[in-house]
Amino acid sequence: MSDTAVGHPLLVDLAGALPADRVVTDPDVAAGYAHDEAEWAAHGRPLAVVRPRSPEEVQAVVRACLAHRVPVVPRGAGTGLSGGANAVDGCVVLSLERMDAVHEIDPVERLAVVGPGVVNDHLRAAAAEHGLWYPPDPASSPWSTIGGNVATNAGGVCCVKYGVTRDYVIGLQVVTGTGELVRLGRRTAKGVAGYDLVGLMVGSEGTLGVVTEVTVRLRPARAPERTVAGYFDDVVAAGRAVAEVGRRGITPSALELVDGECLRAVDAWKHMGLAVDAEVVLLGRTDTPGAAGDAEAAELVAAFEAGGASWAAASTDPDEAEALFAARRLAYPALERLGPLLTEDVCVPVAAVPEMLSRIQASARRHDTHIANIAHAGDGNLHPLIIVPAGDDDARRRAVLAFDEVIADALALGGTVTGEHGVGLLKMDGLRQELSPEVLQMHRAVKAALDPAGILNPGKVVA
Amino acid sequence: MSDTAVGHPLLVDLAGALPADRVVTDPDVAAGYAHDEAEWAAHGRPLAVVRPRSPEEVQAVVRACLAHRVPVVPRGAGTGLSGGANAVDGCVVLSLERMDAVHEIDPVERLAVVGPGVVNDHLRAAAAEHGLWYPPDPASSPWSTIGGNVATNAGGVCCVKYGVTRDYVIGLQVVTGTGELVRLGRRTAKGVAGYDLVGLMVGSEGTLGVVTEVTVRLRPARAPERTVAGYFDDVVAAGRAVAEVGRRGITPSALELVDGECLRAVDAWKHMGLAVDAEVVLLGRTDTPGAAGDAEAAELVAAFEAGGASWAAASTDPDEAEALFAARRLAYPALERLGPLLTEDVCVPVAAVPEMLSRIQASARRHDTHIANIAHAGDGNLHPLIIVPAGDDDARRRAVLAFDEVIADALALGGTVTGEHGVGLLKMDGLRQELSPEVLQMHRAVKAALDPAGILNPGKVVA
Repeated sequence: MSDTAVGHPLLVDLAGALPADRVVTDPDVAAGYAHDEAEWAAHGRPLAVVRPRSPEEVQAVVRACLAHRVPVVPRGAGTGLSGGANAVDGCVVLSLERMDAVHEIDPVERLAVVGPGVVNDHLRAAAAEHGLWYPPDPASSPWSTIGGNVATNAGGVCCVKYGVTRDYVIGLQVVTGTGELVRLGRRTAKGVAGYDLVGLMVGSEGTLGVVTEVTVRLRPARAPERTVAGYFDDVVAAGRAVAEVGRRGITPSALELVDGECLRAVDAWKHMGLAVDAEVVLLGRTDTPGAAGDAEAAELVAAFEAGGASWAAASTDPDEAEALFAARRLAYPALERLGPLLTEDVCVPVAAVPEMLSRIQASARRHDTHIANIAHAGDGNLHPLIIVPAGDDDARRRAVLAFDEVIADALALGGTVTGEHGVGLLKMDGLRQELSPEVLQMHRAVKAALDPAGILNPGKVVA
Repeated sequence: MSDTAVGHPLLVDLAGALPADRVVTDPDVAAGYAHDEAEWAAHGRPLAVVRPRSPEEVQAVVRACLAHRVPVVPRGAGTGLSGGANAVDGCVVLSLERMDAVHEIDPVERLAVVGPGVVNDHLRAAAAEHGLWYPPDPASSPWSTIGGNVATNAGGVCCVKYGVTRDYVIGLQVVTGTGELVRLGRRTAKGVAGYDLVGLMVGSEGTLGVVTEVTVRLRPARAPERTVAGYFDDVVAAGRAVAEVGRRGITPSALELVDGECLRAVDAWKHMGLAVDAEVVLLGRTDTPGAAGDAEAAELVAAFEAGGASWAAASTDPDEAEALFAARRLAYPALERLGPLLTEDVCVPVAAVPEMLSRIQASARRHDTHIANIAHAGDGNLHPLIIVPAGDDDARRRAVLAFDEVIADALALGGTVTGEHGVGLLKMDGLRQELSPEVLQMHRAVKAALDPAGILNPGKVVA
């Protein structure tokens, strides 16, 4: 918080409009809300942090900010990886964390209505009580909120079969850029009444509206998954196996890649006993029940072997399989312990996965930088993690060169600069490379139409 | 075509920009392009019909129309049911029917790239050659085009399990309202680079852009379906069975309702020997393989019986099952032979289906009008068909009263005015009832942002 904040007319208005505990001006507390987990992205100092408890309070905040032309930076749990929730100087950070009620689970219509601050795993657990399932499962699911998932159109492990956040959101309540509290979308299975403003809001990273309630569809709980593991001597061979899974027409319920670096970092941290004798592990899963599932597991093994696995088998030890998936989920925080991470999120066609992994290796060599790999390999969504020793400015400079090269390679292979993390700050340059000037102009036109004052998360996605 | 059209400066420009066979000014031919199948919706007389053969030709037409401020009304096969493709006076009807090439089927990435004029069944057949499947299957699939399906976000029979057109479109080439030819979306499994302009275009009924190429994802071909039929003495009992299917947590691959009126009309036309001794038939299907599919079929039978079926069983005669589904698809054209149809498309929560069907019956009685019913019942998407004897103006007046009442009832039950046909002209009043003034204003802002000259299908969706 700026020292000049006290007495700012916006704070006077907020104090009049909201209970006192909603507004945080303590600089130490506010600092914890100033950025997400994209350690490399710049952030400013907020004027204040506001933690509303109702949609009407969110509306009051946006209206007050509109009146004073103060930027609003919405935020969930702050687990984002692209800087999308980073404060700009003098903004209000609008934390939705306290709007964390599961309002409704409707088992007949198979939908849930939740506050934006509900944690992903919490929604998942609430649905499970009714025999239902909310699929999108980012690695951050124990911490990240549905509102944040909506803002970034979060993906996850099961998305290779079940799709991403946008495929589940059917209705939203939103405070608009003009300070209106509106309902978008529907509660019915289908609906085409007007433009898909719900889909437009999903993935818009808080630049088009502040989400105050989310209606998602749910699926029936699925059959237990079986795991197939494959060990590979190098990451490109694992990539060949991924492309082979695509060629064989299999639809696994997960197809994850974790390299030895990540496994060792997790083991060093959590002592899980991951005695994996491989440079790269592929983890496939199938949730197809019965004999069809057996056949799918066997096809995964065959695809791994065809790609050049040194060893591949359906797991007979559920604990071991679970440990490998847990290691996958913990890879990011484990590597973070080694130094600031620059996280990639490119997504390429499945057939291009081996070539892309090869190019990532070449970039690491060329720029003398250290790149570990985790990937939602089955959808071509790669997360090379560039590790830089803390305080090594030259390594940092080289890392940026590698980062930019990976983006350029992904685009050259027909991919996109961000598969699931969002544009935020880190991919704004990449977005300009990926989209034509005319399409960028369409983005700016939509932004200006829905946020004419330009107060919603300014400087993110499109400048 | 207006008699004053010859010599219109736009026609001079088009003659200079396009090969001669692209532009139709013959009034008899043009008249066939002046409206879709929403017989009750008004339409005007086009200045000309243009049938381009490439995206660049579409761009040339839009640019010429922009220069002369002439409205552009895009059109696929004209099978729409809400007037969305109806000409306005003095417009250019832009028929995409000749852009009918399947450009690519990629079996590894499981996607297809097609011209907007490709007929839905044609895409389906092209995908099947690679063991793949394009699910959205509107009843118009033998005639309607993918471009039209995109414009209306078309649904269909299998959507109760597999979703609608929007769930499959991942990329579009579009001529924008400012005359630019742009690519939106991606070819990768995932992607969050910028706003979801693809989703925004899908269902926008040609008011935000003219689609010149469509990239859809495909699924692996599915297992053969099994059919469960249920006979009911009245439509409300059938509705109870539909809600019961929802309560039992079954996900059928189809759950269709056809009333006796429709079956008799089809039989009178096609002589299919549909000797069905019921006022209403429910048709459920499951494509779950193996024992799980057996269990699902048995659950459907049990749900039908719990709802009050006079008879229900899994079909042992594939020909009979196919005949019943064919009758479902032919119901609309069969009833059209009896007189002008006013077609409803409301969609309500599944639990509200029996109440909604009861209210439809009450409206028919109250307004002394004749309403037959077909429905994608499993998603709560009902198509009451109001039949009016040709030339009976009083019956027509009463039909409109019933139509409006059905819309009001659907909204009162938490539904939407259009599940899959689109707003077009027929549901513009309904849209104003469904959406708040603030949300309508958001629609107008988006429209103005992407079509600042207001030339794309003016007067549709939002005025």
